[in-house]
Amino acid sequence: MKKYMDENFLLSNKASERLYFDYAESLPIIDYHSHLPPNEIAEDLQYDNLTHVWLRGDHYKWRAMRTFGIDESYITGDKPDKDKFLKWAETVPNTLRNPLYDWTHLELKRYFGIKDLLSPKNANEVYETTGDQLKTKSHTARGLMKQMKVEVSCTTDDPIDDLAYHKKIKESGFEIKVLPTFRPDKAMTVEAPTYLEYLKKLSAVSGVEITDYDSFKGAVQKRHDFFHEIGGRLSDHGLNCIEHETYKAGEPEAVFQKVLGGKEISTREQRLLKFDMLLEFARMDHAKGWTQQFHLGALRNNNKRLLTKLGPDTGFDSIGDFSQAEGMSVFFNTLDSTDQLAKTVIYNLNPSDNEIFATMTGNFNDGSVRGKMQFGSGWWFLDQIDGMEKQMNALSNMGLLSCFVGMLTDSRSFLSFPRHEYFRRLLCDILGRDVEQGRLPEDYDLLGTMVANISYHNAKNYFKF
Amino acid sequence: MKKYMDENFLLSNKASERLYFDYAESLPIIDYHSHLPPNEIAEDLQYDNLTHVWLRGDHYKWRAMRTFGIDESYITGDKPDKDKFLKWAETVPNTLRNPLYDWTHLELKRYFGIKDLLSPKNANEVYETTGDQLKTKSHTARGLMKQMKVEVSCTTDDPIDDLAYHKKIKESGFEIKVLPTFRPDKAMTVEAPTYLEYLKKLSAVSGVEITDYDSFKGAVQKRHDFFHEIGGRLSDHGLNCIEHETYKAGEPEAVFQKVLGGKEISTREQRLLKFDMLLEFARMDHAKGWTQQFHLGALRNNNKRLLTKLGPDTGFDSIGDFSQAEGMSVFFNTLDSTDQLAKTVIYNLNPSDNEIFATMTGNFNDGSVRGKMQFGSGWWFLDQIDGMEKQMNALSNMGLLSCFVGMLTDSRSFLSFPRHEYFRRLLCDILGRDVEQGRLPEDYDLLGTMVANISYHNAKNYFKF
Amino acid sequence: MKKYMDENFLLSNKASERLYFDYAESLPIIDYHSHLPPNEIAEDLQYDNLTHVWLRGDHYKWRAMRTFGIDESYITGDKPDKDKFLKWAETVPNTLRNPLYDWTHLELKRYFGIKDLLSPKNANEVYETTGDQLKTKSHTARGLMKQMKVEVSCTTDDPIDDLAYHKKIKESGFEIKVLPTFRPDKAMTVEAPTYLEYLKKLSAVSGVEITDYDSFKGAVQKRHDFFHEIGGRLSDHGLNCIEHETYKAGEPEAVFQKVLGGKEISTREQRLLKFDMLLEFARMDHAKGWTQQFHLGALRNNNKRLLTKLGPDTGFDSIGDFSQAEGMSVFFNTLDSTDQLAKTVIYNLNPSDNEIFATMTGNFNDGSVRGKMQFGSGWWFLDQIDGMEKQMNALSNMGLLSCFVGMLTDSRSFLSFPRHEYFRRLLCDILGRDVEQGRLPEDYDLLGTMVANISYHNAKNYFKF
Repeated sequence: MKKYMDENFLLSNKASERLYFDYAESLPIIDYHSHLPPNEIAEDLQYDNLTHVWLRGDHYKWRAMRTFGIDESYITGDKPDKDKFLKWAETVPNTLRNPLYDWTHLELKRYFGIKDLLSPKNANEVYETTGDQLKTKSHTARGLMKQMKVEVSCTTDDPIDDLAYHKKIKESGFEIKVLPTFRPDKAMTVEAPTYLEYLKKLSAVSGVEITDYDSFKGAVQKRHDFFHEIGGRLSDHGLNCIEHETYKAGEPEAVFQKVLGGKEISTREQRLLKFDMLLEFARMDHAKGWTQQFHLGALRNNNKRLLTKLGPDTGFDSIGDFSQAEGMSVFFNTLDSTDQLAKTVIYNLNPSDNEIFATMTGNFNDGSVRGKMQFGSGWWFLDQIDGMEKQMNALSNMGLLSCFVGMLTDSRSFLSFPRHEYFRRLLCDILGRDVEQGRLPEDYDLLGTMVANISYHNAKNYFKF
Repeated sequence: MKKYMDENFLLSNKASERLYFDYAESLPIIDYHSHLPPNEIAEDLQYDNLTHVWLRGDHYKWRAMRTFGIDESYITGDKPDKDKFLKWAETVPNTLRNPLYDWTHLELKRYFGIKDLLSPKNANEVYETTGDQLKTKSHTARGLMKQMKVEVSCTTDDPIDDLAYHKKIKESGFEIKVLPTFRPDKAMTVEAPTYLEYLKKLSAVSGVEITDYDSFKGAVQKRHDFFHEIGGRLSDHGLNCIEHETYKAGEPEAVFQKVLGGKEISTREQRLLKFDMLLEFARMDHAKGWTQQFHLGALRNNNKRLLTKLGPDTGFDSIGDFSQAEGMSVFFNTLDSTDQLAKTVIYNLNPSDNEIFATMTGNFNDGSVRGKMQFGSGWWFLDQIDGMEKQMNALSNMGLLSCFVGMLTDSRSFLSFPRHEYFRRLLCDILGRDVEQGRLPEDYDLLGTMVANISYHNAKNYFKF
Repeated sequence: MKKYMDENFLLSNKASERLYFDYAESLPIIDYHSHLPPNEIAEDLQYDNLTHVWLRGDHYKWRAMRTFGIDESYITGDKPDKDKFLKWAETVPNTLRNPLYDWTHLELKRYFGIKDLLSPKNANEVYETTGDQLKTKSHTARGLMKQMKVEVSCTTDDPIDDLAYHKKIKESGFEIKVLPTFRPDKAMTVEAPTYLEYLKKLSAVSGVEITDYDSFKGAVQKRHDFFHEIGGRLSDHGLNCIEHETYKAGEPEAVFQKVLGGKEISTREQRLLKFDMLLEFARMDHAKGWTQQFHLGALRNNNKRLLTKLGPDTGFDSIGDFSQAEGMSVFFNTLDSTDQLAKTVIYNLNPSDNEIFATMTGNFNDGSVRGKMQFGSGWWFLDQIDGMEKQMNALSNMGLLSCFVGMLTDSRSFLSFPRHEYFRRLLCDILGRDVEQGRLPEDYDLLGTMVANISYHNAKNYFKF
């Protein structure tokens, strides 16, 4: 029996080991998509304790605790930090086979040198030991990033964000590039009761008075320019699916006018306006050589009772079964037909749709950029061994794995960077297993180059931060 | 080469073996969902021969025989029992890799001690040997259950059932609890030509005259109370998917009145009335601390020619591709918003939807009950190694495997209980393989406890029969 | 480490090897579905070079090249053949884990005896060596087929095709049966601007003046008869999904009349007319004892810019997410209810729908023909190890693998026949792995017979060419 999480963790044979240690392990991290809070980097936050840095804001852990039967007061409630941690420690041995079990122990090991498995037995000790370390310079927000050899970290930001923290970070001379990502979800949520208020803020921050669709687009363009100036090279969109609609010239303008006037709009009007906005934003990305990202497939905010109490992103989202193929096809085709299709990464939350996504990218790869259309790595619920392996298998079988830009954390936590290690080990093991079975040639130059490219170089060459 | 179906069947390494033999093998069976005929238990039926106890009513076998090219007269027709058996024996060697092949041999072995593989060569002998055993006390309906250490067996029953057999079984002092499950499918099938007739029977058995929606609900409530009295703690629903509909107060009442008056109702009206009924039934479950079950995803009665000839549940159903996510979300959320969501098990027939189901449960786990929302074990077409493994993988990755209530037979046959053994072996092997690869710690206390919980204790604590 | 593509390629243990070499390897090939150009067989074409025989028309390779960043001029453009080949050779090492990598090396090995892995280093040499061989008799169109022991090869043909090449091939005494397949896609595409023109050609070739729906059906019937005369025993249909529609007697006739008159028809009318045509064609197949094939699930022509430039089938298709279950159910049931359901093969492009397809076949297997309803082998994007294995697993678990008619190339290339070897090796390995794990009995007669049946005999008995 192989020891759990030993140095060859996830590496099941010599080929896997050789690929990982010789070609992947030492490479820096380009974390091109995350939800890290830039203020904590700007301030170089020192964390109070493990609960503060690890449990606060982590809805993965919260869901597990709720399923295990832990009362909400220990999760998002007002119980003391230590008590919350003890409840988490009680939950951990019951998360066997969930990625949380691996993440927990990999993170304790890499950041704090703790090799024991967390359980109620050693919970106190772990809390103390980590508490001591969290008081040191190596365990501030920046310290945690530096420990993991992060080279670039992209946050996710609203167009109206002033990016003050990003500027501050840059000015401070921090050796890690921390760059904003343009995520205009709220600028598109025209049905939200707060939309007009949002437009006011957008007007204010852009200096463009929004009186019609054109000035709206102008305001967004200003912010896009501003993000570019600060170093942003990515946009991102969180959508159920890309809903397309056929419409005539002038319709988006007319519908937007209704919205501005506070009038109700039909479902069709909503859809066409959003589709048109998405096209407009995509053209901005193309014009500047950015990469656009689409996170598709989530069914959000299912539990209204707890949503009302706790707000969004607290663990009440799940996987949807939306129709994905046609919307993407129409959207990308519309952009491609005028040669305005930017580099694109599509992320899929429903693993049943992996093959749709993998083959969709092939439709718009036209030889202009290596791996122009990317099928993104396993996302959210799929950010685990099975999910990542299925994504890589679909990509391998229906596209070119060799051109893949690889892993990203998508995390809100400074302790999530070892997921890159997790991914790299899995990648090397997938290849190593194939080698062992004679399904791939035992050619370490060939395979190692591919490993290094997927782990680091492809992202570097593709995103051009 | 490992010998087929030896004592380590499905157990591929020492860890798997240890987990199975030390923690799972000896535990009793809680079979919380089946379609066993209670009359056969009440009468302690002695079976005529193997065809009688094994082929009669088994549409899995029938489908295989039809695919293999066997004439219907040997399947559901009037050919002699022996001839039917010989045709089945001819089919068996052609079912390699189908669960029928394993089930066949596991059942012959466990109930009859037959170790040879069934084929035309030994068919006569098997028929005779089993025929002799079926004449003994150990092979009556009750004998078969006792052989397998069944502790609880839940049948599936219509609200208008008088549960006379369940009472008789209880009164007889039978050591195995045989409990009814409340399955009001027919009470909801308002479009059936026989619906008004059904309501008459419901009136009669409940003693409530059904003159409007309120009295209908009152009548159902009476039956729900009655099932509870007899020991029922479960409801069950067989649906394509949960179809939701928005409607105003008073609408279900009005639509029901139309139905009572024999008037046609629209698709929307049908949908809203059924959705409202489902909510009402769910509230009854919650009020009594029951668990509600939903079997979703079947496309039934595809072959009208043979349906007309042979009736429903004769092997002409398949897997559908319904939209599942949103309906479940709205339904559970509606119940949750007034804190009337009972413990729930959702069973999925389309494996592409596994991840939707696994993540849906997480939306409504609120810490109140351990594993409150359950993603049920692989069902029907998915009740096989691949199907069960995929369900457990999805559950592991997106929920807590440790809280799983485990296996059930869902069978019409008294020879199906070894499916619990089959499941337990697979569970232990999944974990054992992970241990061998260093993906789980080699900690038998930790893993063995989980195995025992999933095999037996979780169901015991969850259903509280 | 097992050597890549050695003689035991894909065979991971002794059982796999024994099954392959003793029961599968030497069997001839019945390639019952392909897109081979019959003219090249009739003319026994001698190819100019490897680009001519290998890259021309192969949209799999084209997509890979575009993804890798190769300019279109080297793909479908006017660059010299040699330069195109060099670009392909540059791409190959970057297709690791894509079926192209295996196909490339298997084809170079089997047809040309080249054992080295293709790369820019040996590209020149490979081009020369193969160029020399392509000048010989063993490497003409017919030579390539004979090398691979092809016994029957079915092409895919439009009803208006005069089948002159098929006649010529037959008359030439060629030992391989080359038979047409009736694919009336264009006869059903009533919305195409070229439809009336198509009808004119159909009139001309059938000798039936098309003035209404009846004469249309008569004309199609004539062509069906003609295909039968030339040896055709198969029809084929390429559809997103089978879209069904309810309609009254006379409606298809009326809608067809509108089409004939050049009038616009509604979506519903389009759907009902096509559905009715599909039924009519299916009845023709049944009347003659043919087998009908349905290729379902493709989302075609996504990239309009390149479609306009390069035409259809040039690499801009992908996998769709259509609803498949209900349409198939209604369609097959309609035919079955009048006992006019022909033998049928359904091919699925979206692997998430595998279980729908596998169980759908069971609904219409009625004991009349062994394996009457077939779930076809992994198709197009799924024609690779994962895709074929998933198809065989679904088929095994939900139907009878033993009755499977097995592999087909579906290819436009004379170099694709080794895909039968690839499939047979995989099949033997799937079984061999099960044997090794004790999941199947180590009975080589039993398993070997199944292997031989799936590799060859089942197709022979089923299609009756």
